[in-house]
Amino acid sequence: MALVIYNTLSRKKEEFTPLQPDRVHMYVCGPTVYAHAHIGHAKSYISFDVIVRYLRYQGFRVKYVQNITDVGHLTDDADEGEDKILKRAREEKLDPMEIAEHFAWSYFDDMRDLRVLRANIFPRATGHITEQLDLIQKLLERDYAYEVNGNVYFDVSKFKNYGKLSGRKVDELEAGARVELNLEKRHPADFALWKIADASHLMRWNSPWGEGYPGWHIECSAMSMKYLGETFDIHGGGLDNIFPHHECEIAQSEAATGKPFARYWLHNNMVTLNGSKMSKSQGNFVTIKDALKKYSASTVRFFILSSHYRSRLDISDEALEAAQTGVDKLLTTIRNLKKALHKAKKLKEFKEPFDPAAYNKKFDTMMDDDFNTPRAIAVLFDLSKETNSYLNSGAELDSSFLEALDLIFQKTAGNVLGLIPDDLMDEKSLDSQGELEKVIQVVIDLRNILREQKHFELADQLRDGLARVGITLIDKSDGTQFEFKSD
Amino acid sequence: MALVIYNTLSRKKEEFTPLQPDRVHMYVCGPTVYAHAHIGHAKSYISFDVIVRYLRYQGFRVKYVQNITDVGHLTDDADEGEDKILKRAREEKLDPMEIAEHFAWSYFDDMRDLRVLRANIFPRATGHITEQLDLIQKLLERDYAYEVNGNVYFDVSKFKNYGKLSGRKVDELEAGARVELNLEKRHPADFALWKIADASHLMRWNSPWGEGYPGWHIECSAMSMKYLGETFDIHGGGLDNIFPHHECEIAQSEAATGKPFARYWLHNNMVTLNGSKMSKSQGNFVTIKDALKKYSASTVRFFILSSHYRSRLDISDEALEAAQTGVDKLLTTIRNLKKALHKAKKLKEFKEPFDPAAYNKKFDTMMDDDFNTPRAIAVLFDLSKETNSYLNSGAELDSSFLEALDLIFQKTAGNVLGLIPDDLMDEKSLDSQGELEKVIQVVIDLRNILREQKHFELADQLRDGLARVGITLIDKSDGTQFEFKSD
Repeated sequence: MALVIYNTLSRKKEEFTPLQPDRVHMYVCGPTVYAHAHIGHAKSYISFDVIVRYLRYQGFRVKYVQNITDVGHLTDDADEGEDKILKRAREEKLDPMEIAEHFAWSYFDDMRDLRVLRANIFPRATGHITEQLDLIQKLLERDYAYEVNGNVYFDVSKFKNYGKLSGRKVDELEAGARVELNLEKRHPADFALWKIADASHLMRWNSPWGEGYPGWHIECSAMSMKYLGETFDIHGGGLDNIFPHHECEIAQSEAATGKPFARYWLHNNMVTLNGSKMSKSQGNFVTIKDALKKYSASTVRFFILSSHYRSRLDISDEALEAAQTGVDKLLTTIRNLKKALHKAKKLKEFKEPFDPAAYNKKFDTMMDDDFNTPRAIAVLFDLSKETNSYLNSGAELDSSFLEALDLIFQKTAGNVLGLIPDDLMDEKSLDSQGELEKVIQVVIDLRNILREQKHFELADQLRDGLARVGITLIDKSDGTQFEFKSD
Repeated sequence: MALVIYNTLSRKKEEFTPLQPDRVHMYVCGPTVYAHAHIGHAKSYISFDVIVRYLRYQGFRVKYVQNITDVGHLTDDADEGEDKILKRAREEKLDPMEIAEHFAWSYFDDMRDLRVLRANIFPRATGHITEQLDLIQKLLERDYAYEVNGNVYFDVSKFKNYGKLSGRKVDELEAGARVELNLEKRHPADFALWKIADASHLMRWNSPWGEGYPGWHIECSAMSMKYLGETFDIHGGGLDNIFPHHECEIAQSEAATGKPFARYWLHNNMVTLNGSKMSKSQGNFVTIKDALKKYSASTVRFFILSSHYRSRLDISDEALEAAQTGVDKLLTTIRNLKKALHKAKKLKEFKEPFDPAAYNKKFDTMMDDDFNTPRAIAVLFDLSKETNSYLNSGAELDSSFLEALDLIFQKTAGNVLGLIPDDLMDEKSLDSQGELEKVIQVVIDLRNILREQKHFELADQLRDGLARVGITLIDKSDGTQFEFKSD
C-alpha cells in the first residue's frame, strides 16, 4: 500500500515519494510568539505531529524543522500594521526578546503537555538575519527584487509562476481590496523583503540598505532551504497561510534558486469557536492552557484527531466531553489488557479468536489515505471491542496473544496518534506506576482477608473509603480490580 | 544590611550597587551544546540561579541573560583545534544544528529537573552573527583589529587594560607555552574575532572578509551588550573562563565602546571527581542525568549549596548521601509543620516560644555576605531544630505562629535556595497532593477502627502492608502520621 497525500499545489491526492529514499525533509510554519497558543494552534501542530509520527512509524527518517517567528508578523495581511511582538513589548515595557522568549517557552511547554514531539530544529527568525540578507541579495542580483529608500520589494511581475499555489492571478490581485496602495511598489502585489526601520523601531539589524528588519515571508524561505536544501519534500502550515505567505515563499525561493521549492504542500483546516475562526488577533479563542485545565492531553488530541486535518473543527464543551468519553473507553481497554497480561500465561494450545494484524493493516490503510485519523481511530474502536469481548469471554487468556494486541495499541494509538499517556505506554511502566497502585493493592488484599473472616462491615468501610477518594473497586470472578480517572 | 559581592575584577568584596535602582542586568556564560551537561555545569548554573533568586527576593528586577553556544568553542585554549559541535556532527552524520538543538534541549530539561529557573533570554551564538559582524567591523574601524587572509584578529597591544581581570601581562603571555605560534598574528596573544572557513567547514556565514565563522569570544560581547547595554551590572561564569575568555570579552567590548563593560565579575569554582576537575573534554565527569537517577533535585541542590560557590567541591556517593540525609531532615520538618498547620487553630492567648523573624534576618545576613549558602543553610537547620521542639512540645499549637514559620521556610529554603519540591511549596498544594495521601488516610482510618475493635492482628497487617511499599506509619499521641521518601 502506498502513502497518498493531498498536495495543495496540484489540488489532488498524490502518491508520496521523497527525494531521498527513506528520508523525509519537512518544514512546518511555527508560531509567532507574542501570546499563549490556542486550540487552533493545537490542531495545526498535533496534525503535523501525527504526520511526522506516522512517517517515522513507516520507517522514514524525518528531519523536521519548525520555525519560531520572533520578529513579529505584521498585524494584517498587507505589509502594513504594527509588529505584534513589538506591540506587546511596548505594552509591557519589556525588551521584545524577553516577550519572544517568554512565549516561545509557553509554546514549548504547551506542546510538551500535549505530547507533541519536538522538531529536530526550531530555527528562529532573528537567528537567521544573515541568511535572509543573503537571499535578498541574490534576488536583487537576479533582478527579481528592487530597492526603494532602503525598502526592498519582490517584483511579482518577474516571477511567472506567482499564484500557482493559491490559484490567484496577479491581475486579479491588482483590483483586490486587501492590497494597499504603496507608491514605492511597482505593482500593488509586490511584497516587502526588507523594511527600513524608523527611529522608534526596537528590533533592527544592519543591512546593505540601512538599518531595518525582514519582511513577513523571507524567514521561512531562508531557514527551510538552509536546513532542508533548496528542494525538499513537505511544507506544511495552516490553510490561511496559502496566500500570501506560502505563495510568496515559493516566489522568493524559486526565483533565487531556479529550482522547485517544496514538493508537497499540506494545509490543515481551522478550528472554529461559535462558528467563526479561532484567532488571537480577533480575540476569539480558547488557549491550550485553559483547555488542559479541564481536559487531559489524550482528550484534546482525540478531539482534534477525530476529524480530518483538512476538515474544519468546531470546539465546544460538548464536543470535548464526547472526546473524553471516547478516549477513556479506549484507554480502559488498554489498561484492562495490561492487567490481564500480568496474570496470563502462554497456553500450550491456543487458537486466536481474531486476527490482530488485520486491524493493524486496516489502521495503516486509513493513515495511508492522506492521514485519515478519524477512520484510523474507528479501526482502533473495532479492535477495542474485539479485545474486550476476548478479555470478558471467561476463557483462559493467552499471554502471547495479549502481548500482540498490546503491541498494536502501543504502536497505533500510542506511537502514531499519541493518545496513550506515558504511564500506560509500555509494560515496564506498569510496574513503576507508583506507590498509589501498590497502596491500593494493600487495601484490596486486606479487604479480601476481612471478607474471608466475615468482617463484611469493615470490608465495606474500606471499599467506601476508596470510593470517596475516587477509586472504584470492581469484584470480578478472577479477583478485584480498581479503576480511577484516566490520565 | 548591604549586599556584598566578591568582584574578581577588584579581587575584593564590594558593596553591590546596580546601575539603575532596583534593576539588575546580569549575564552568565551558558553551555556549549555538544554533549549532556555534567555536575560541574550544575554547580555553575545552580549557583547563579540562587544568586538571581536571592536578588529577586531582595526586590530587584533581574534581567538574566544566559547564552547558548551553538557554534562550538574550539577544543583547546588557543584558537586552534576542532570545533566541538562539528566534530560531533561528523561523528553522528547529522546537521550540526540538529546536534546543537538536541543538546540544548538536554540542557534545558536538566535545568528544569534541577529547578533552575529559566533565564529571561537565552540568546544563541548562531542567532547573532550580524551583531558579531557589526562588533568586529567597529573594532576594525577603531584600529583594535586587523585582517589577514580573511581572518580577523584582535590586537592586544592596542588595548592597555588587557589582563586587568586575570592579572596576566601581555609580555608574560608571549613566553607562555599555551600560546601557539601563528604567523598571521602580530603578537602571539592576539586572538581571533573571525575565521575563514575552509571547504570542509559545515557552519559558515557570509562576511565582509569571506565565508567564515566567529572566534571563540566575540559572541558573549555581542549578545550581552545587545540585551543588557554597553555597561551592565553582573557577569558570571566559571573560574576557568577568567582567562582567556572573559579577559578577551572585556578587551573586545571596551575597545569597541570606550566604556566599562561588566561592573561585577563573579566566578564559581569547579567540581572535582577523584581529585581532578570534572570536564567533558577530559572524560572525567558525572552527568546531571545520571546523578538525578540516584538522587533527587533537592539532594543535588543541597549538595552544591552546602559549599560556597567560590569553593571547590569534591563529588562522591558519600557526599551525596550525606546531602540526602541533610535535606530530608529539613523537608521532614517542613512537612510536619504543614501537617500541624492543618489541625492548628488561632489561639486566643499565645506567647511565641521564639522569634522566627530573627532567623529570617540571620539567613539574609549570611546571603548578603557574598551569597554564603552554607552558612545560610546552617541557619535553616537552627530554625528547623526550634520548629521541631515546638511541634513536639505537647503544647496546643497556634496556627498564626505555624504560618509564620512556614512562610519563612517557603521564602528561604524554597524561593531562594530552591530546595523544596513543588508538592511542598505552598499550603494549597498540600490539598492537591493527590490520591496517594487520601488513600493512605483511608487506610489509617480503618486501622484505627480495627484497633478500637481489638483486631490487632489485622491492624498490624495493614501497617506491614504499607511498610512493604515504602510507607511508614508513626503513631503519636495526637494521631497517626505517615512518612515516605521526599521528592
